[in-house]
Amino acid sequence: MSDFDLSDFDFDFDDFDLSDYAGLRPVQLSTSGSALRLLDQTRLPVEERWVELDTLADIALAIETLTVRGAPAIGCAAAIALSVLSLGFPDEPPAFRAAFAGAAARLADTRPTAVNLFVAIEQQRACLAQPSLAGASAEHMRAALRETARRHVDDDLRACLQMGAHGARAGCLPPGGVLTHCNTGALATSGHGTALGVIRSTWAAGVALHVFVDETRPLLQGSRLTAWELVHDDIPCSLLCDNMAGALMAKGEIQSAIVGADRIAANGDAANKIGTYTVAVLCKHHGIPFYVAAPSTTIDFTLDSGAQIPIEERDPDEVRLHGGQLRAPATVAVCNPAFDVTPAALITGIITERGVFTPAELAPAYASA
Amino acid sequence: MSDFDLSDFDFDFDDFDLSDYAGLRPVQLSTSGSALRLLDQTRLPVEERWVELDTLADIALAIETLTVRGAPAIGCAAAIALSVLSLGFPDEPPAFRAAFAGAAARLADTRPTAVNLFVAIEQQRACLAQPSLAGASAEHMRAALRETARRHVDDDLRACLQMGAHGARAGCLPPGGVLTHCNTGALATSGHGTALGVIRSTWAAGVALHVFVDETRPLLQGSRLTAWELVHDDIPCSLLCDNMAGALMAKGEIQSAIVGADRIAANGDAANKIGTYTVAVLCKHHGIPFYVAAPSTTIDFTLDSGAQIPIEERDPDEVRLHGGQLRAPATVAVCNPAFDVTPAALITGIITERGVFTPAELAPAYASA
Repeated sequence: MSDFDLSDFDFDFDDFDLSDYAGLRPVQLSTSGSALRLLDQTRLPVEERWVELDTLADIALAIETLTVRGAPAIGCAAAIALSVLSLGFPDEPPAFRAAFAGAAARLADTRPTAVNLFVAIEQQRACLAQPSLAGASAEHMRAALRETARRHVDDDLRACLQMGAHGARAGCLPPGGVLTHCNTGALATSGHGTALGVIRSTWAAGVALHVFVDETRPLLQGSRLTAWELVHDDIPCSLLCDNMAGALMAKGEIQSAIVGADRIAANGDAANKIGTYTVAVLCKHHGIPFYVAAPSTTIDFTLDSGAQIPIEERDPDEVRLHGGQLRAPATVAVCNPAFDVTPAALITGIITERGVFTPAELAPAYASA
Repeated sequence: MSDFDLSDFDFDFDDFDLSDYAGLRPVQLSTSGSALRLLDQTRLPVEERWVELDTLADIALAIETLTVRGAPAIGCAAAIALSVLSLGFPDEPPAFRAAFAGAAARLADTRPTAVNLFVAIEQQRACLAQPSLAGASAEHMRAALRETARRHVDDDLRACLQMGAHGARAGCLPPGGVLTHCNTGALATSGHGTALGVIRSTWAAGVALHVFVDETRPLLQGSRLTAWELVHDDIPCSLLCDNMAGALMAKGEIQSAIVGADRIAANGDAANKIGTYTVAVLCKHHGIPFYVAAPSTTIDFTLDSGAQIPIEERDPDEVRLHGGQLRAPATVAVCNPAFDVTPAALITGIITERGVFTPAELAPAYASA
């Protein structure tokens, strides 16, 4: 999107030409069409290594061990995975459907919080359940799964470009410093990114931004991934430890903050990478606008509030170790929640592919759509 | 201090029996009396290794390479070092004094900013300059240096115990979770600690605390040192990344926060390890009391406010590297301020060896003393 400029915002949001998109695509169907191709995010920023996976065990492990991470990217990976794995399912339709159910169940078990994973799996399940495929051959079912996967990935990229355009047009990110947390870029999606997509589109529209990147302990998605993407795209940025953003705000260096979301409740409460809540509190204290950018698939209208969002507690050694080396007592108890919930009251606006909403506007806007 | 109980708080604060103190003493005179004995802090938390040093070259190197760190602890090491080294000075008084001057100059050259280092050296210099030692024998001078070193270390330990007792008596830390940041414990002082000393004394007084330890990026004084001290003393604790404290507060797990200070201005603004300001903002948002514990020597009444405190910007690679390994783009710009300033308005109380003061009470209390 290096040639993305202000005039791009005038197009029909429903009619992006995705084939023109030349940015990074970290989750792909392999050229051969028989494997899931992933940019191994555990190797960045030191090494840009791609892997091709075609077994359920390898793909499930890749999701569990964060070779691919970021809720939308995980959804895309699962959608493509079910298509790719179906090539190995038995041709006998009942056995094909049983193999599909097993693979879907295993993939659903990889990560508990990312709703996109479940949406993608459900789309593929609904695909096979459509009346026109009743009694269909394995060949027809494979083709349908492939088409559904393609549509899932395209929808995600289109949503990112739309979020970027909406955020830039609304002027959510004024000139100056913009703080972001974790990775919400091309690497977290099928391309462009959610919060980082809004930053990319705003920068491309000519707004002079300087991006402050929280390193995002313990897994350092900010320093490993977001900083890598920004350096890659020549967007001005500075890396900081998570505990430094407050001091920068006090000095007036940050004019806005934007983050992604793993799950948004009907009232606008948003679950995102641990540390997001602290960013939101700091923004509130300093009168800085705080935005959440996420596709509509992230909104879970079955949840009244963020209190109902389950929070994954991860391995204590992620906190005890640094670069593989022990930097804490080996037996010390550790808090390691993967996410926190930012209440709607701290959120200035939620940017989806449909527009920019206050938390209170969100549910009515979607109910009336 | 495992036998420290509530009744201990009833004694005269000017008359602690320091010989009873059984806690960790990381800077000592060796049992033989002829060496400086240090707990090697570069080996923690993986290994508890003590070293005994009796040459100027070895002691200077130990201070330079952070075998001992923490401003008060460095001061104690220098005071003891000049006593120990004097055992090897010539017996001829002029040669003795010349050797002292050489050793003092070399020690003063080890670390540029720790004010306690210069205070300790100056105390030993003043000791030898006192009229009663004019024309004294080397034997008398050695005894005087030893006594001055003992007094320097005792004064530091007494101040820590007084801070602890004041904080515990005032009930600054209620039962429940207490958050701390960086290392302010025995390892930073002659023993017991400042903010961690208040935690120790409160715990010893029977208050059921659970200490939440910020790991304190980038140099991890929390995970490497504070967590080690708490595990060592069997005080319940959990280690967390700096970005997790907000979420724990939102869940109601933290009832108070206490930190140290590197410098306090006359109006009560306090400079401390980067990240302290964010802790204070989080406490304000959640209605949690936020305390600063530091000896009176930390207060700089020549500064009207924290805006006058210079903030050191440190090596970018401290942020880019983890456990010696690159975890960010090698060329990405980095913010790495060593300290931030917490405004007095966010500070519930400042605990010194003289008592517990609101920021507004501090200057009047010291002016009238």
